[in-house]
Amino acid sequence: MHSIPAIITRWQSGQAPESAADVLAVEEPLEIRVNGHSIAVTMRTPGHDRELAAGFLLTEGVLRSGDDLLDLLVCRTQTAGATGNVIDAQVRPELAVDFARLTRHVFSASSCGLCGKATIDAVFQSFPPITSDELFDPDWITALPGKLRAAQPGFDSTGGLHASALFSRAAGLLVVREDVGRHNALDKVLGYALLDGAIPLQNSVLLVSGRVSFELMQKALAAGIPVVAGIGAPSSLAVKCAQRGGQTLVGFLRADRMNVYAGAERLGLVPQEVAS
Amino acid sequence: MHSIPAIITRWQSGQAPESAADVLAVEEPLEIRVNGHSIAVTMRTPGHDRELAAGFLLTEGVLRSGDDLLDLLVCRTQTAGATGNVIDAQVRPELAVDFARLTRHVFSASSCGLCGKATIDAVFQSFPPITSDELFDPDWITALPGKLRAAQPGFDSTGGLHASALFSRAAGLLVVREDVGRHNALDKVLGYALLDGAIPLQNSVLLVSGRVSFELMQKALAAGIPVVAGIGAPSSLAVKCAQRGGQTLVGFLRADRMNVYAGAERLGLVPQEVAS
Repeated sequence: MHSIPAIITRWQSGQAPESAADVLAVEEPLEIRVNGHSIAVTMRTPGHDRELAAGFLLTEGVLRSGDDLLDLLVCRTQTAGATGNVIDAQVRPELAVDFARLTRHVFSASSCGLCGKATIDAVFQSFPPITSDELFDPDWITALPGKLRAAQPGFDSTGGLHASALFSRAAGLLVVREDVGRHNALDKVLGYALLDGAIPLQNSVLLVSGRVSFELMQKALAAGIPVVAGIGAPSSLAVKCAQRGGQTLVGFLRADRMNVYAGAERLGLVPQEVAS
Repeated sequence: MHSIPAIITRWQSGQAPESAADVLAVEEPLEIRVNGHSIAVTMRTPGHDRELAAGFLLTEGVLRSGDDLLDLLVCRTQTAGATGNVIDAQVRPELAVDFARLTRHVFSASSCGLCGKATIDAVFQSFPPITSDELFDPDWITALPGKLRAAQPGFDSTGGLHASALFSRAAGLLVVREDVGRHNALDKVLGYALLDGAIPLQNSVLLVSGRVSFELMQKALAAGIPVVAGIGAPSSLAVKCAQRGGQTLVGFLRADRMNVYAGAERLGLVPQEVAS
């Protein structure tokens, strides 16, 4: 299951907003276990999960060949909606597995209840939803990528960096940071705000150069940001996180148009019709 | 330091290859500590490291405001070349920090000797360099993106997925997988090969849809792949890893041209002149 249908709000400058059918890339957590020990949770697109677990264990140095692998068991005894999001690799017992080293991005250590909803629930145990009722003008939002390029003429000369930037209605561009890692670029922007005493960022918009994943939405929520806009597409779990957190999520942001995946009311948009 | 100069081999169909000056996005590890406890190593572009550490700790729920942070110390007592790649956040001692939960991508637990070279050294302790002496025709390499699109007409309909694909000279396209995470797409491809008994992949080429990071090169090395080609740019550490591992690394792959960052001899290319 690579994609799921979604209803979004399409906005184009000078036209009435419209509801439209779209598809989202699916993002769900997968917990990988080795002989029953949980070693990793990765946010992935479901499908080919046995291959994903096998490849992960190959590239982490656990498996050297298919002979090291006795079986790959998909955990089926899970709570509703979470079936298949835990996979247990049975490896030859004589393999030396360094469990302490094999940690990666473990959002949740819940046993056999892992799903997108549980992942989001864990986030909202730590961070409250956004309650800001400030409105943002769509024409102002679509101007942000141009403002960023004007302020940073040497922006991404290598073609190899991701960017994150914060804007406010009052002050315009607050900060921009670039990094080979998209989560690092965002962490730098949010760290700037924290060190500046500006958390929570209630009246600001976050602009990211690429796609919008669940992890980016989680980080924006932690900083209290009401509007997240990406040049690329959001994932399914990013949209669910935005809906739950009361955040506005914009994708495919261009100079004169955008797709709104959640929180269109904060942009004053009430779509009138359904296109497809 | 966002970018560093590099000499690459530019190849265009029908023309002689040429050496050219280029710039690479810098990728280096940063170890983040809290009150002296190592909690994470992230591959980042150096610069604004205090902000990165502060933002990471905010979004992981450790810090709620700047008041929780007493100081951010950059570790200076490191081995040559590694200065500044460890940062220690001194937080209020009464903060409840869940160290067990705060793990992420820890490649190496080396104390105060963290640098790109040490990171690569750790990889080569686990995986041998590539010794395959098979040659690949540059015109065959530049045809691969077109072959992928022909085989997958619905390729990435959401605009939100990364792709990885394996090709061999003999069989053409072996496998293609898509995922919201670039490392997941690659793990799925390599897991397919492992379960198929095809590791090491000595005579194959890996094609990835986006940028080439250190982590992707490490995974390709683990599977024994001699040639890695990306549609986007490679990072500095990806290039260093390719050079050390005897791998050929291609970036900005198009239908009639490419940049070769390492191992041009495997493509039969001996550049004649220096452009800039």
